[in-house]
Amino acid sequence: MQNRIDVNCDMGESFGAYKIGRDEEAVKYITTANIACGFHAGDPMVMEQTVKLATDHNILFGAHPGHNDLAGFGRRNIQLSPQEIKNEMIYQVGALMAFAKVHGKRVMHVKPHGAIGNKAMKDRETAVCICEAMYQLNPDFYMFGHANSVMLEVAKEFGFRTISEIYADRAYGDDGMLAPRSMKGAVIHDKEFAIKRALKMVKEGVVETLSGKVIEIQAESICVHGDTPEAIDFMKSIREVFTEEGIKVVGYSED
Amino acid sequence: MQNRIDVNCDMGESFGAYKIGRDEEAVKYITTANIACGFHAGDPMVMEQTVKLATDHNILFGAHPGHNDLAGFGRRNIQLSPQEIKNEMIYQVGALMAFAKVHGKRVMHVKPHGAIGNKAMKDRETAVCICEAMYQLNPDFYMFGHANSVMLEVAKEFGFRTISEIYADRAYGDDGMLAPRSMKGAVIHDKEFAIKRALKMVKEGVVETLSGKVIEIQAESICVHGDTPEAIDFMKSIREVFTEEGIKVVGYSED
Amino acid sequence: MQNRIDVNCDMGESFGAYKIGRDEEAVKYITTANIACGFHAGDPMVMEQTVKLATDHNILFGAHPGHNDLAGFGRRNIQLSPQEIKNEMIYQVGALMAFAKVHGKRVMHVKPHGAIGNKAMKDRETAVCICEAMYQLNPDFYMFGHANSVMLEVAKEFGFRTISEIYADRAYGDDGMLAPRSMKGAVIHDKEFAIKRALKMVKEGVVETLSGKVIEIQAESICVHGDTPEAIDFMKSIREVFTEEGIKVVGYSED
Amino acid sequence: MQNRIDVNCDMGESFGAYKIGRDEEAVKYITTANIACGFHAGDPMVMEQTVKLATDHNILFGAHPGHNDLAGFGRRNIQLSPQEIKNEMIYQVGALMAFAKVHGKRVMHVKPHGAIGNKAMKDRETAVCICEAMYQLNPDFYMFGHANSVMLEVAKEFGFRTISEIYADRAYGDDGMLAPRSMKGAVIHDKEFAIKRALKMVKEGVVETLSGKVIEIQAESICVHGDTPEAIDFMKSIREVFTEEGIKVVGYSED
Repeated sequence: MQNRIDVNCDMGESFGAYKIGRDEEAVKYITTANIACGFHAGDPMVMEQTVKLATDHNILFGAHPGHNDLAGFGRRNIQLSPQEIKNEMIYQVGALMAFAKVHGKRVMHVKPHGAIGNKAMKDRETAVCICEAMYQLNPDFYMFGHANSVMLEVAKEFGFRTISEIYADRAYGDDGMLAPRSMKGAVIHDKEFAIKRALKMVKEGVVETLSGKVIEIQAESICVHGDTPEAIDFMKSIREVFTEEGIKVVGYSED
Repeated sequence: MQNRIDVNCDMGESFGAYKIGRDEEAVKYITTANIACGFHAGDPMVMEQTVKLATDHNILFGAHPGHNDLAGFGRRNIQLSPQEIKNEMIYQVGALMAFAKVHGKRVMHVKPHGAIGNKAMKDRETAVCICEAMYQLNPDFYMFGHANSVMLEVAKEFGFRTISEIYADRAYGDDGMLAPRSMKGAVIHDKEFAIKRALKMVKEGVVETLSGKVIEIQAESICVHGDTPEAIDFMKSIREVFTEEGIKVVGYSED
Repeated sequence: MQNRIDVNCDMGESFGAYKIGRDEEAVKYITTANIACGFHAGDPMVMEQTVKLATDHNILFGAHPGHNDLAGFGRRNIQLSPQEIKNEMIYQVGALMAFAKVHGKRVMHVKPHGAIGNKAMKDRETAVCICEAMYQLNPDFYMFGHANSVMLEVAKEFGFRTISEIYADRAYGDDGMLAPRSMKGAVIHDKEFAIKRALKMVKEGVVETLSGKVIEIQAESICVHGDTPEAIDFMKSIREVFTEEGIKVVGYSED
Repeated sequence: MQNRIDVNCDMGESFGAYKIGRDEEAVKYITTANIACGFHAGDPMVMEQTVKLATDHNILFGAHPGHNDLAGFGRRNIQLSPQEIKNEMIYQVGALMAFAKVHGKRVMHVKPHGAIGNKAMKDRETAVCICEAMYQLNPDFYMFGHANSVMLEVAKEFGFRTISEIYADRAYGDDGMLAPRSMKGAVIHDKEFAIKRALKMVKEGVVETLSGKVIEIQAESICVHGDTPEAIDFMKSIREVFTEEGIKVVGYSED
């Protein structure tokens, strides 16, 4: 039985005058921030402020690199060569490393965003090319990946420390992966049920799939959203319920 | 008398399908490359290839950050706050540091480009804000600046090692700074004369200004262009003439 | 005495996943929309939706072109040549004209945004270059300008129909122009007073400046904001109070 | 037998300080320019200059819109919704229409570029969505498409006047479409043979495919490149040989 959980949230996704996310509130409840790196979202000002915010609240943070596609928020597939994927990752993560250094901190993990992130979860070639680039940059990074994903598998082969991530509000298929949003029942709207389910994943290491099958799942971190008042409430509830149930809500690398 | 000179050239200024600069040729004759960082020019692919090129030819390289203005090639003034200047610098230099790390190398120096570079040469506030940001990132950077510029002065105050840079093909004013291109005689078209003059700056530490006055100038590095066949020929001539005259053409940090 | 007023609001300033402005609410209370053209804000999807929104609500709309600077929301000065200003204007306004055509409508006016807009209000050269470009594109455009601005003067010289615009919540200097925000009292926070004052500008054609002097001002359109619930309330109040006072709230070109 | 041919070339693909294409030379030999619209290449300055160049040489010109992907030169597939494709097309073509208007000319045709262009040649849904958008904008546009392409077929269904375009230096498959560059023999390097072959397509309306089969092909315009000295020579040769053979080299809409 596992008695701890990390709670991660995407942050730093504002851009210039445009604001996305309630980072100042969310930072109080999460243990880990995934910071956008200026390609799909974020800009140098926002990155610096977000690194400072995470530092001031003493939470872990890592890089959340995505496609160079602000208009599509990194969610549109773009056909890139493996070398292009590598170099876009190195560029973005390096930029965040610089802000971390300036604040006396380190980029602890990498979690690819959106279209490239989703592709890496299923496509071995994409996962390998991201891991190759990140391993050259820093083999001490933790690599985030969806529970049961190809990404996690590949990251382990490379020798990375990995964090297996679950979503409280998303259903799973029999392959252990997230059911696509287009499927009926893929998004769980009942918050209480979602938390109970997440708790079971953490405590027992299993989840019931959409078809009713019970499969194994490793829940080292829960991914939460931080963009609505409801999302902030949900974070609070997770913390409370988990703590009551004897699960420590704590950053993945802390003792 | 000084018996050595560094030769630096801006590189990695291509972008996607667009090519600027004859980097593959220029790299053979220079000792130091200033690599664009993806804002005024360059992209992740070009940066990686340029770091590799410099590494393969065993020359020094540093960051050449500029305004985030590809359309203006970083040459247009853009009104930024000091914090915006700092964060844009940190972002760009950090990205290049990542490519350097991946190739087992280090970003050795910083030389701001275009409009922001020119402003830093004369405006103390701009120079201070660049130096503050770079000092936080890495106090071991060498800082490049035009001979007699405010930038050099400020960089020394910060404790940076500095490189005083001259232009062979540009005339100087009585203030020791480059005469603006709009002034008559500001650009020197006679290549032989330009080299002879550069030689005198290196050997004797003086230059004759546009008004005929002789002023002191420190020539630790000559900046050359790399975008035309004539520019490549000029580099070759500099190397030959300087070597004949007993001046060693060698990277600024090498013994 | 004037018995009508136009109410204009900047719209279509969202971008991709980023939302700015409560356009769906604002559109119910205004008579004229200034639509961003994809440079400082807006994108092709947002432009099309905003043209449709204005069309569905049967209000006037025009182009709100700005600097090509999404990160700075068009508010940062960028050093452009007159030809660059012209071509950036033509490009943006042309793009909006295409969306208007597709919806069977016409771009009725031009109102430059942010840094370039502010510059055009005071700087004759900038105003001339914008008017030249717009006159070539369509001499039938109405040109918006702050009351008493150089822009209005120049637009009239070109033969444009002009709309003299006032701000209800901003104080005026003795030169008849908006007092800079940095001045004490420049922004009027008392909404009732602001409306009363605007009413006086419309009815009597005068305004009291910050120094207490009474000057002439022509109020053909009031510019309102549309980004907060308070702003929406303010719009409603303007409509109500003006209507009660016998001032017709109606688009500038309607009978 | 057909006794005339149009010669079209992509132009205006430079961007800021970056130059692609020998437009000033190419314009002397072609009859039609496809002008980039600022998304995959080109910028407002380049567009204006290219419209002026085409106008000064009295040749036809049209819009060459592409994906909003300067880094990929519009050649990378990007996953867009039909509405996104439409709006990006309308935006770009509208911008060019404005420059045409300013120069007293009209955008005569539309020829989609790169990834979106290639997709439209084979994919009916893409072709339909481009035609829908362009028909709303101006049903009088000529639509360019590869000979035997879905795009031509769809454009005809919409009621557009169409121009069936061939490539002199590319081989054809049995489906009447260009053989993919990856296939052996897909690119024809023998210039004399290429011209002879193009002549046959024009005169006889047939071409021999890679497999040796003879198929019908309609050659209303030849697409030529304009980026190398060899490409310019090739243009001259086409003009000379065709003229000698009694084929008039003339714009598609001229008598």
